[in-house]
Amino acid sequence: MRCAVVGGGAWGSALADLLAKGGHGTRLWAREPDVVHRLNACHDNPRFLPGVALHESVQASNAMSDVLADAELVLYVAPSHVLRDVVREGARHVPPEAILAVATKGIEPETLLLLTNVVTVELPDRAVVAVSGPSFALEVARGQPTAVVAASKSSRARAAVQRALSSSSFRVYTNDDVTGVELCGALKNVMAVATGIAEGLDLGLNSRAALITRGLAEMTRLGVALGARPSTFAGLAGLGVLVLTCTGALSRNRAVGVEVGKGRALTDVLAGTESVAEGVRNTQSALALAQRAGVDMPIVTAVHRVLFEKQSARAAIGDLMNRELRAERDE
Amino acid sequence: MRCAVVGGGAWGSALADLLAKGGHGTRLWAREPDVVHRLNACHDNPRFLPGVALHESVQASNAMSDVLADAELVLYVAPSHVLRDVVREGARHVPPEAILAVATKGIEPETLLLLTNVVTVELPDRAVVAVSGPSFALEVARGQPTAVVAASKSSRARAAVQRALSSSSFRVYTNDDVTGVELCGALKNVMAVATGIAEGLDLGLNSRAALITRGLAEMTRLGVALGARPSTFAGLAGLGVLVLTCTGALSRNRAVGVEVGKGRALTDVLAGTESVAEGVRNTQSALALAQRAGVDMPIVTAVHRVLFEKQSARAAIGDLMNRELRAERDE
Repeated sequence: MRCAVVGGGAWGSALADLLAKGGHGTRLWAREPDVVHRLNACHDNPRFLPGVALHESVQASNAMSDVLADAELVLYVAPSHVLRDVVREGARHVPPEAILAVATKGIEPETLLLLTNVVTVELPDRAVVAVSGPSFALEVARGQPTAVVAASKSSRARAAVQRALSSSSFRVYTNDDVTGVELCGALKNVMAVATGIAEGLDLGLNSRAALITRGLAEMTRLGVALGARPSTFAGLAGLGVLVLTCTGALSRNRAVGVEVGKGRALTDVLAGTESVAEGVRNTQSALALAQRAGVDMPIVTAVHRVLFEKQSARAAIGDLMNRELRAERDE
Repeated sequence: MRCAVVGGGAWGSALADLLAKGGHGTRLWAREPDVVHRLNACHDNPRFLPGVALHESVQASNAMSDVLADAELVLYVAPSHVLRDVVREGARHVPPEAILAVATKGIEPETLLLLTNVVTVELPDRAVVAVSGPSFALEVARGQPTAVVAASKSSRARAAVQRALSSSSFRVYTNDDVTGVELCGALKNVMAVATGIAEGLDLGLNSRAALITRGLAEMTRLGVALGARPSTFAGLAGLGVLVLTCTGALSRNRAVGVEVGKGRALTDVLAGTESVAEGVRNTQSALALAQRAGVDMPIVTAVHRVLFEKQSARAAIGDLMNRELRAERDE
């Protein structure tokens, strides 16, 4: 299968490597000339995925026309806030029969659209697949066992993505609840910030476990209100991703939370950094979605207060621990 | 409320400290003379909970009659395999109106009885409460925020335990699904061993997140077959405890798993250690329960094969990753 990976970050590089190792002709688009040059010359990506050798057959380019021509599968792996621009930029080069997939987690900030819907707006009348699951790019590139979900309303499209990506160490399971899978991926970043705040406050592992438990409960509530299935939230894209994000290596989202938890203002934490953590944007999107759906999300609300409403981390998380956890018996 | 804590390990000491801080007259029974002496003389328990000062009002004794006389709440915190002996030893001293609670997680090895049921056999016709949740004893003793569940069929008994234990940093939520709460506590030890095995094999964090996700799914299947509610498994006693056990500080159960995962035989790992990890015993109990209920538990089965049937860790966990995770779409 001829595959195009659009996005040259850590995850895009790991997925291109996976496809190439699986025998698929794979091209990768990256905006950064140094990433393109280095991938073609040295078969690695020290800027975004240092220390890993990538498959020699991956061809990189910063011309959409080169990468998308004749592609049978197009896998978008650009950050959520630029995804639309990237899809639009290459739209006229995408072959009419190509299957489209999105491996980025998130919501489009302004529109609150799920990312498969953003793709559909730019490239109408095509099957789109969401790929999500607990998957640190570095572990995937190293061949450590990983399991993800390929979700789409189209059984043909999700099965095609499953076949293309599956290997002995990377297992892809299909799911038709694309709304649930994408919501999980967007909301987990907010929970990562919340976990970071609790870490910054030195609240300990007991409260982290309680936060993950209550976090998944409120994510599931929103999902059900928006037509998703609870079992998706209990699966790899939900619980799996949440556990990895909140207990794995310190992510950018959690790191921002840690600094805010220690009492620094968000503007100070973000000053001088190249990119805004997705979880910061996702917090605004998630709260807006929750309000629109009329669903109470106390953890999302608390994170929003700390990041954007000048409430102290200790007060917000303290309120949360004192208030929200009363709910177990009402479930 | 006059409280008796029966068991002087880390968790018993932390709970006695919590009760005493809450203004309850609290006595603690421990079998070990050094623990009793040290608690009374220095108000700490360096053998089981080093580095923490305990409340000065906790009175320790190794005479059941001293500890249980006039008690209004009796909280059992003895290891699962000796719980029955400890309950029986003090049975004739337990006042007729006392509320009974068990804060130990596990199943009785030979009978496969839940621990509240063990108490009921020894002390019939009384309300018994199970206390469970993500709660490292050291964090509780330090006053870090913790949330647990008090589960009982008796609303009066669970509310009494909730009142007795609750503080600003220790929150107790009631639940009437005592079977679910206790099953969670027994099964999580098996998942801890499984996580340790995966760590010993260096499988990475992606596969740990997948293991936790699939582990909770099979725990829930067994629970539902035995009359428990799925929401209990998604709550603090289920997901909360599982996350803490599988991602928190290295427990004895996980440590045994790590050694076995590195290829050592269980008999070698246990040789020279004072106590068998509960998860080792729980694996046999859990498999027996699953077989009796006719429920497929692939992770429990894999752990059993590695611990007791001489299957290599890599083969068993490899089989599991290749086989079990196919199930997401069938859920």
